[in-house]
Amino acid sequence: MSAAFFKPRLLAPGPVEVPPAVLEALARPVTHHRAPAFRETFLRARERLATVFSVPGDDVLIVTGSGTAGFEAALVSAVPAGDRVLALHAGRFGERWAAMAESLGYQVEHLEAAPGAEFDLSEVAERLDATSQLAAVTLVQSETSTGALHDVRAVAELVRRVRPEALVLVDAVTSLACAELRPLEWGLDAVVSGSQKGVMTPPGLAFVWLSERAWQRSEGAGRAGSYYLDLHRERAKQAGGQTAFTPAVSLVAGLDVALGMLLDEGLENVWRRRAGLNAALLAAGGALGLRQFAARPSPAVAALVVPEGIGARAVLSAARARGATLAGGQGELAGTIIRPSLLGYADRYDAVAAAQLLEDALHDVDADTPQGVAVPAALRALAGEA
Amino acid sequence: MSAAFFKPRLLAPGPVEVPPAVLEALARPVTHHRAPAFRETFLRARERLATVFSVPGDDVLIVTGSGTAGFEAALVSAVPAGDRVLALHAGRFGERWAAMAESLGYQVEHLEAAPGAEFDLSEVAERLDATSQLAAVTLVQSETSTGALHDVRAVAELVRRVRPEALVLVDAVTSLACAELRPLEWGLDAVVSGSQKGVMTPPGLAFVWLSERAWQRSEGAGRAGSYYLDLHRERAKQAGGQTAFTPAVSLVAGLDVALGMLLDEGLENVWRRRAGLNAALLAAGGALGLRQFAARPSPAVAALVVPEGIGARAVLSAARARGATLAGGQGELAGTIIRPSLLGYADRYDAVAAAQLLEDALHDVDADTPQGVAVPAALRALAGEA
Repeated sequence: MSAAFFKPRLLAPGPVEVPPAVLEALARPVTHHRAPAFRETFLRARERLATVFSVPGDDVLIVTGSGTAGFEAALVSAVPAGDRVLALHAGRFGERWAAMAESLGYQVEHLEAAPGAEFDLSEVAERLDATSQLAAVTLVQSETSTGALHDVRAVAELVRRVRPEALVLVDAVTSLACAELRPLEWGLDAVVSGSQKGVMTPPGLAFVWLSERAWQRSEGAGRAGSYYLDLHRERAKQAGGQTAFTPAVSLVAGLDVALGMLLDEGLENVWRRRAGLNAALLAAGGALGLRQFAARPSPAVAALVVPEGIGARAVLSAARARGATLAGGQGELAGTIIRPSLLGYADRYDAVAAAQLLEDALHDVDADTPQGVAVPAALRALAGEA
Repeated sequence: MSAAFFKPRLLAPGPVEVPPAVLEALARPVTHHRAPAFRETFLRARERLATVFSVPGDDVLIVTGSGTAGFEAALVSAVPAGDRVLALHAGRFGERWAAMAESLGYQVEHLEAAPGAEFDLSEVAERLDATSQLAAVTLVQSETSTGALHDVRAVAELVRRVRPEALVLVDAVTSLACAELRPLEWGLDAVVSGSQKGVMTPPGLAFVWLSERAWQRSEGAGRAGSYYLDLHRERAKQAGGQTAFTPAVSLVAGLDVALGMLLDEGLENVWRRRAGLNAALLAAGGALGLRQFAARPSPAVAALVVPEGIGARAVLSAARARGATLAGGQGELAGTIIRPSLLGYADRYDAVAAAQLLEDALHDVDADTPQGVAVPAALRALAGEA
């Protein structure tokens, strides 16, 4: 084992594997952010991003910062200071948005589901009905910490029916360019994502789309917090191909290339490919005795429960010894789950390789692990025989 | 002219020319931000950054965002919500910090000097004396919009004497790794900079140092605004080589390489080199009839007044036709000044080239421009005969 050669493989749900052409774009000489060459790249990247968000024209704003910066930007730019926010959460990221809203001075109500569980829609409906003066609802589409895909469409429909005045703010950090997402048809008001996930660029950029009514609602209203993250300033600038503050120009150059690759493939093809790759990881895990953690799994990440006798940490170490960086569970799930992901630059052969690597890592830890089962299971899933 | 070949040259005061070795580091495969390989790079970059800031050990925090994000992080993390802030300004960036503090709900007092002028220290002393319950003073060391180097040391000494309880928050965005800066000896409480300036890395990272008393003052106090930019969360994480939120790992890799190059040269040598290069630009401008705009020029940027009959915009266009991206004036100075800079990866031969390019661009616009004068003037300045 110790003499064997292993390539580094990034199998985490972000940062993800980035295509060589994107890395190459990052290494280009830096352009000035007010120069015509950058403006052209920036406007094209914004237009491509709008296509990936399934929203019109140049509606998506690019902010230099992490996904958390993006969510804060959406929240403070769409929801006037001090308003009431209902935070739906069933995992770490949903909890973070609730904590953020509290720290920003909003009146926050919590609706919690168990980690990995779905929200009970009748409970959501009751809660909406019981909450007066509700300004906004926050939720996560793909809860990266649990591997769950929450039904944003159904929740948004409920909100539209029961509390039509409330804005629906969605964390699509790991679901963008991965799970179906239709902000206009579903009646969403904010969608947030980041560069280091489905759009396979290094971390450092956040993306925010706001609905027209969200822009109008917040225009002229009191703002909670940040000057840097106030998108009203950014919106006017970005329409002209500029930014209010110096952006990460190298990351924008990489993003533009990555988005071009995704759009060449076609957005719905990308959704299908990634659903297939994730199904393959879940199937490989299943064949190895690791059950899926989430009730309704996200295509962005395969959260798998490692039996207690084996231990998630030991499997992660064994995978690392074979070159792979996988995420484990966060917080109370730390010793319980592993979260392999092929959200980045990956094809079916990467799924085959990951399945075998997972089998080998488990076998390193537990000699009773069955052998020769993960790849066949992955291939069946890829063929749609899940 | 139109058939001639020109290389692109970035002669702006940020983003600046980035060394090829830094660009190369940006193109490395992305590492996971919780993986050991990244932790090692991050901790080393933070240690090198502390050396460049002339502060101890691992005191400087890295935030993913622009310099504006960095200043907001320093302000909200050091100064409790609603406190009184005296903003010294004599240009666009000083004004921005005043506007930011107002929008964040601080009680802001303004002390304004004319763009490019020095602050009158007796006026500053009077104002400090007259202002009770003053929590903080904000000022800019190198005001990029005017090319002025403000005397941070003298202002800080005044504050320490007249209002010892007030924190001194300094924008060192373009002065870091360029002008002398000694946060501890000068009694500063916050120093902010960004990646795309003296540390010659692409934009996207901000750096913040806070004094021990600034940390203590704000510990447990009410915070104005941002969740993302609250450094109390970052401080604990970064001590262990992590970040609260996913950082721009590729930019950190580049930063680490750039800082290594600067420290190999030696910080005081870097200061001397850049002072010489900027003196050369000012001297070239002087020989061409462009007088320096700032009373006390910053070594980061040469703000030069273009005679009315010629016009700054025409000179910028002519320089652009010769491949060079230079900054002009901002706001009311737009048609008046040009701001060439060699703040990035530049040596004496780049100063010679820039001097000739400036002469040629001026000559393109005004056939009466003297010829053969800019380079000799630049060389005399480089030899210390300014």
